[in-house]
Amino acid sequence: VGTTDGINLAVVAGDGIGTEVVEQGLSVLEAALAPSGTKLSTTEFDLGARRWHATGETLTDEDLGRIKSQDAILLGAIGDPSVPSGVLERGLLLKLRFALDHYVNLRPTKLYEGVSSPLANPGEIDFVVVREGTEGPYVGNGGALRVGTPAEIATEVSVNTAFGVERVVRDAFARAAARPRKHLTLVHKHNVLVHAGHLWRRTVEAVNAEFPDVTTDYAHVDAATIYLTTNPSRFDVIVTDNLFGDILTDQAAAISGGIGLAASANINPDRTAPSMFEPVHGSAPDIAGQGKADPTATILSVALLLDHLGFTAESARVQDAVAADLASRGDVVRTTDQVGRETDQVGRDIAARVTG
Amino acid sequence: VGTTDGINLAVVAGDGIGTEVVEQGLSVLEAALAPSGTKLSTTEFDLGARRWHATGETLTDEDLGRIKSQDAILLGAIGDPSVPSGVLERGLLLKLRFALDHYVNLRPTKLYEGVSSPLANPGEIDFVVVREGTEGPYVGNGGALRVGTPAEIATEVSVNTAFGVERVVRDAFARAAARPRKHLTLVHKHNVLVHAGHLWRRTVEAVNAEFPDVTTDYAHVDAATIYLTTNPSRFDVIVTDNLFGDILTDQAAAISGGIGLAASANINPDRTAPSMFEPVHGSAPDIAGQGKADPTATILSVALLLDHLGFTAESARVQDAVAADLASRGDVVRTTDQVGRETDQVGRDIAARVTG
Ligand SMILES: CC(C)[C@H](C(=O)O)[C@@H](O)C(=O)O
Ligand SMILES: CC(C)[C@H](C(=O)O)[C@@H](O)C(=O)O
Repeated sequence: VGTTDGINLAVVAGDGIGTEVVEQGLSVLEAALAPSGTKLSTTEFDLGARRWHATGETLTDEDLGRIKSQDAILLGAIGDPSVPSGVLERGLLLKLRFALDHYVNLRPTKLYEGVSSPLANPGEIDFVVVREGTEGPYVGNGGALRVGTPAEIATEVSVNTAFGVERVVRDAFARAAARPRKHLTLVHKHNVLVHAGHLWRRTVEAVNAEFPDVTTDYAHVDAATIYLTTNPSRFDVIVTDNLFGDILTDQAAAISGGIGLAASANINPDRTAPSMFEPVHGSAPDIAGQGKADPTATILSVALLLDHLGFTAESARVQDAVAADLASRGDVVRTTDQVGRETDQVGRDIAARVTG
Repeated sequence: VGTTDGINLAVVAGDGIGTEVVEQGLSVLEAALAPSGTKLSTTEFDLGARRWHATGETLTDEDLGRIKSQDAILLGAIGDPSVPSGVLERGLLLKLRFALDHYVNLRPTKLYEGVSSPLANPGEIDFVVVREGTEGPYVGNGGALRVGTPAEIATEVSVNTAFGVERVVRDAFARAAARPRKHLTLVHKHNVLVHAGHLWRRTVEAVNAEFPDVTTDYAHVDAATIYLTTNPSRFDVIVTDNLFGDILTDQAAAISGGIGLAASANINPDRTAPSMFEPVHGSAPDIAGQGKADPTATILSVALLLDHLGFTAESARVQDAVAADLASRGDVVRTTDQVGRETDQVGRDIAARVTG
């Protein structure tokens, strides 16, 4: 994974609004890279519902091999009601996260100027969730017996290892140490999920010794949803497991302008495989093809991509352009992916601001 | 379990503010029962942190046997920072729920007049969560290996059975059928937790045939946290698993006046053991002993208790008294357990309204 000869980018536009938002993400990426003359080479991967319907394939070993040779992945959205639940999620999206060892699922939440929160008194909202990405209840362990009979039993096993927890906790501490407030909150449910919970807790205590400047606290996941409603300003960096992170980051998006603005990065910090950048939202089949999707979440994911590949100044330019665009939109409470302008117009406006 | 000779009530005041709020709950219960001449016999059970420190016991077989002979249980709050996490939760609170087969954990959410929601446009909030209470990730399956070493592995197993899912889903349908909107939402994460998720999904589809008037829909748990923020009015009855229910009901409390108002009932619908009524909040050691705790959640739990034991009119009287008390408080956003009046004053005011 190197960036000296430009960026080789795997593009997985996916389903529904995925193609629309990725197109805008790419044009902003190009605008950001232009001044430095960095070459962007994109390779499109036909993955998602269309491919599955046509071939029955989700992600082949060959796809995966080709993706592994890229520097990064930009993903739009995966999923369609015509595909049975779980097929594309487990067979494609989660397979990518697991196979490429994306153990840091990074989800920043910021209430930008010009964006209303549905909370009465949101205060400052500026935190980042470090969601573990390769363990927990997402591992696909468990199964079912006597399916469809009155004696059916179905299990789901959450797997947590010292190896897996420690590396993501260390990453979260490093991120907290680099932020002004230097505060880390562990979110779990250690009073009920005692085995996993105590592993997380002990790990946070142990790794804290390496980051003495970082203060820590703890919230049960249920209490965390209360704080996100009544006092989101209390959070700086949150570290949590795969499922709790999934839940909290959707709520976090809801309080900060909606999932039309929520970016995410699936990071392999060891750089043994490309990292993947994707909006938190889904394929939104109800508004697909209508130019109504807000590409901002994808564009902010592009900023995370630039940052990950070392283009720090370029990343800042994209973030500033988004901030300026949002400030210019007027005071709108955003509760869906929909935005006043057409998808491509938002993309063009932000790209123009990046170009300056 | 009978009520002909009056009510035999097990009282587990527990820790922290538990004793304070239970005292008020009991005085309102007495006020509600007085007109009918129903005799209330209470038996106090010394359970919680104090007992554990003194004897090392959480809930003995003898305690459990005596509790089983009662008609119902009123519980205040369990837990104290001086007790290791999980000891009282697993050994006492969850043990009661499991041993007494409280498979319906009922948590109504209502935005009362006079109560502000931290949401900008809450609309009408009036839904009830039917949280499964005896399965899911709460079963205490799983364990840990090589604890404290770099090779540690900790698992948590969510167990879901057709038996367990069907009975709670049927209960939720019956509740939905009895409400004006007759709508049931299943909340799960069936695109990731495919085995458990598909069991829940198929069960809802199957039981729907018995309740053709009830409309249903589905939300992933992450999306549900968005709806609770942006459009809580869409919910009527929610049925969900033990952990998702835990998370959503705290968020539900946060949007409807705070956990100082959130009631719950742990119900054994088959009446093979007493049901248990408790506020959703915890023991709040930070404000314990100061008369600052809001007893309203406990008083609303008493209303659920009365309803469960067949005292429908008495239950309505308590709910009306609470509604009137809340309306008289003025427009306050309540984000903590704290309320303007002292705990006992709130209890006295509500009891006086019940007496009429
Ligand atoms: C689509 C789904 C598998 C995914 C997840 O649960 O991780 C999504 O909700 C997300 O948050 O990226
Ligand atoms: C204290 C804890 C075990 C409990 C739970 O998780 O069920 C509490 O959060 C609740 O919601 O009643």
